[in-house]
Amino acid sequence: MITISFNTDSNMPLYQQIYNYIKKEILSGRLSHPEKLPSARSLAANLQVSRSTVDTAYSQLVAEGYIDAREKRGYFVNPITHTQNFTPSRDPLPVSSHSLEQSCTFPYDFDPDAVDTVHFPYSVWKSIGKNQLDDPHNFISGNPLGDRGLRQAIAAYLYGSRGVICTPDNIIVGSGLDYLLQMVCVLFGRNAIVAMEDPGYRSARQILTANGYHLHNIPLTHGEFDVQALRRSSASICYVTPSHQFPLGSVLSISHRQSLLDWASEKEGRYIIEDDHDSEFRYKGKPIPALQSLDQNQKVIYIGTFSKAVSPAIRTGYMVLPSALMSRYRESCSGYACPVPRISQAILTEFIQQGYFEKHLNRMRKLYKGKHDTMLEELHIHFPDDLLHISADNAGLYMIIHYHGSLSDGEILGRAEKNGIRLRPLKGYYANLPASYQPAYLLGFASLDEIQIRDGVALLAEHVLI
Amino acid sequence: MITISFNTDSNMPLYQQIYNYIKKEILSGRLSHPEKLPSARSLAANLQVSRSTVDTAYSQLVAEGYIDAREKRGYFVNPITHTQNFTPSRDPLPVSSHSLEQSCTFPYDFDPDAVDTVHFPYSVWKSIGKNQLDDPHNFISGNPLGDRGLRQAIAAYLYGSRGVICTPDNIIVGSGLDYLLQMVCVLFGRNAIVAMEDPGYRSARQILTANGYHLHNIPLTHGEFDVQALRRSSASICYVTPSHQFPLGSVLSISHRQSLLDWASEKEGRYIIEDDHDSEFRYKGKPIPALQSLDQNQKVIYIGTFSKAVSPAIRTGYMVLPSALMSRYRESCSGYACPVPRISQAILTEFIQQGYFEKHLNRMRKLYKGKHDTMLEELHIHFPDDLLHISADNAGLYMIIHYHGSLSDGEILGRAEKNGIRLRPLKGYYANLPASYQPAYLLGFASLDEIQIRDGVALLAEHVLI
Repeated sequence: MITISFNTDSNMPLYQQIYNYIKKEILSGRLSHPEKLPSARSLAANLQVSRSTVDTAYSQLVAEGYIDAREKRGYFVNPITHTQNFTPSRDPLPVSSHSLEQSCTFPYDFDPDAVDTVHFPYSVWKSIGKNQLDDPHNFISGNPLGDRGLRQAIAAYLYGSRGVICTPDNIIVGSGLDYLLQMVCVLFGRNAIVAMEDPGYRSARQILTANGYHLHNIPLTHGEFDVQALRRSSASICYVTPSHQFPLGSVLSISHRQSLLDWASEKEGRYIIEDDHDSEFRYKGKPIPALQSLDQNQKVIYIGTFSKAVSPAIRTGYMVLPSALMSRYRESCSGYACPVPRISQAILTEFIQQGYFEKHLNRMRKLYKGKHDTMLEELHIHFPDDLLHISADNAGLYMIIHYHGSLSDGEILGRAEKNGIRLRPLKGYYANLPASYQPAYLLGFASLDEIQIRDGVALLAEHVLI
Repeated sequence: MITISFNTDSNMPLYQQIYNYIKKEILSGRLSHPEKLPSARSLAANLQVSRSTVDTAYSQLVAEGYIDAREKRGYFVNPITHTQNFTPSRDPLPVSSHSLEQSCTFPYDFDPDAVDTVHFPYSVWKSIGKNQLDDPHNFISGNPLGDRGLRQAIAAYLYGSRGVICTPDNIIVGSGLDYLLQMVCVLFGRNAIVAMEDPGYRSARQILTANGYHLHNIPLTHGEFDVQALRRSSASICYVTPSHQFPLGSVLSISHRQSLLDWASEKEGRYIIEDDHDSEFRYKGKPIPALQSLDQNQKVIYIGTFSKAVSPAIRTGYMVLPSALMSRYRESCSGYACPVPRISQAILTEFIQQGYFEKHLNRMRKLYKGKHDTMLEELHIHFPDDLLHISADNAGLYMIIHYHGSLSDGEILGRAEKNGIRLRPLKGYYANLPASYQPAYLLGFASLDEIQIRDGVALLAEHVLI
């Protein structure tokens, strides 16, 4: 006999109240296998509800396996083992508003990864976006490699501005270096032996490590990648930033580029991952052509993103794969869709095709050069050469200051924080810190205006790096 | 002596023509180490260009390592080895408009993965989108786990509709099952032993295989996952679709859920991946609560997406991690950013928070039920029960037809194609096809209207499954 006191104030439908009640009875053991439930008709009469209300509750219990329907015999409780306690003991939605992810803001954050978002042509982006939102095609699944139009636009841009030799058919659109490098790890599998520059890009090192590779860290001697050290290692894959070494800022010379390509060509299965992270921005001469543009043997995996040239928030990047790897991708990675929403791809495609991207790049090159020059000037005004040496200038969105005074790294960071300045120590980018390391910091200028740069450098000189 | 005939018709700046010329001379070996270049002043005079034009060309050559600047001595050609041929031999941008990715369209595509995009509330989505495009914050890098507002909205939705116990702090936003499963593979590393349902979701199998796992395929006996077979395997990770098995459509019963949770609890390091792919849509009773809602021992990784409820084109999904795995993620996956663009996150957040998501779901549940009922009805009208058996109905966006006639699978697919019908054979979802397998097909109804469903089923009956 089942008696349920319905909660008539509740919004919960009656069938669900019946379902909940019987489920609770079964889970608590008060109703147990092989007990027979009352027929739907008699329970409906008993509870004074409609027959279909009970039917719905019973089918739900059948669907979830609590009870069994036997033709012409009725409903029976199934055997349930009670090893698990079914009352949720955890508070489902704690009200704490604080989380581990809170970040402080500094008035002077010399963030080397930041970009200038003030001068982005929002009005253009918005009007393209609004048009694209009108197109229902942007709500239908797209090509797993990325929309062809976008890949065409990227191929044309890469060939024109970076000398990269590619077709839309060997480009894969992804959400950023992190995603693309992850896919490279999937392509190479568990047994690859991977080398990378030291110092180098932290996220790349973390991703390669998270994938279980024991990294060979190849030291940069006087800013140059040591191809001989790579040769002595057993690595078959090598991650480099040849056009603007991150973080040291050096350019891999043509002879080193050749040696690196030679190394890759000498053995089957060797590949170079070229991370061409911020090569859009050089303030002296024209951009250095990509290493990939010199590659005659399909040995370079070229990765680039729109993170610096547009914004990291749009999460769009691309990689150019040698044909052997492209075939491997098509074969073994068919389970992966392109992670960039179609609407985002459509906006970016139009932004490039209509020439806004190039215009924006040219404008930002000038603006960043202005910020770069201001920072350099202010550093020279405020610091004597023997206290502060500057490197990694003339390109990208940051420079490096090397401190030769008496304060320790810890003292400097403490003083900086006290003065509202956030500094990124160079040592954070090393896997193996050289014995000769002296305190040095990356100073990003992209997200600061010229007044902030002036004031920030002055503060550094007066209160921090003394 | 360097003589360059400038191309005055070209848009190429003079400095670049000088740079190109000298680079070519060096690469061809006509200028070689340790030759000295003319001084910038004399070359400028000689070529009748400004001194700064030559300076720019020279600095570029220095930056790329072709030449070396020695203080007070001038510019010297660096040693370059000529093992690589530097003239690009490949056509950079072939004009072929055909690619491997071309897909044909069928008038009657019973795609089980498609969704209804006709009834999506574009006007609402667009107006939210247009407002969000006005907010420059959407161009600044966001939280690597996904924006907190979105994670809060997801936590509330999951608790309310699926019984999932979670907080914003153990939710990770990603671009879809493919991305999230990939991150799970990264978390578990190389040595995990993984089991999954057979038949099962093809992309999941491809991703697990692409990550180098040798899968234990656990057969579904009469549609039920065989926990005993899982126990006999050495697997520590198990991927399942408990609320609506893909593709068979069965619901994992409560006793099997308990056994599965027991299995996971018995050994450290065992985990269940619950892919809750389309559980928003059930046409009888209410949605089956998630397996995760029964888990008291933090053993279930819950993965869901907005692909079915909104559209796969928005590439947004989420996973709920047990706390031990969440800590592991925070430690070892700090190199990964959230792949969903911030603007997409912002639009979706507002769409959920303002109640549009729930409204849309309720509407689509009715619409899909209509299409589902039409398909079922038409199948019953056109086919005798002994020729065609129907399963996997009453939930999701497709059903399965099992054919008991005399045609072979190949004959059926050939006839279907000839009649403009695209069918997905059930056998494509099996790793190991059972000996008893009979031709069966997934019939999706989501993207077809009722007339297309009627006509398509009639065509199937008249010309294909005879």
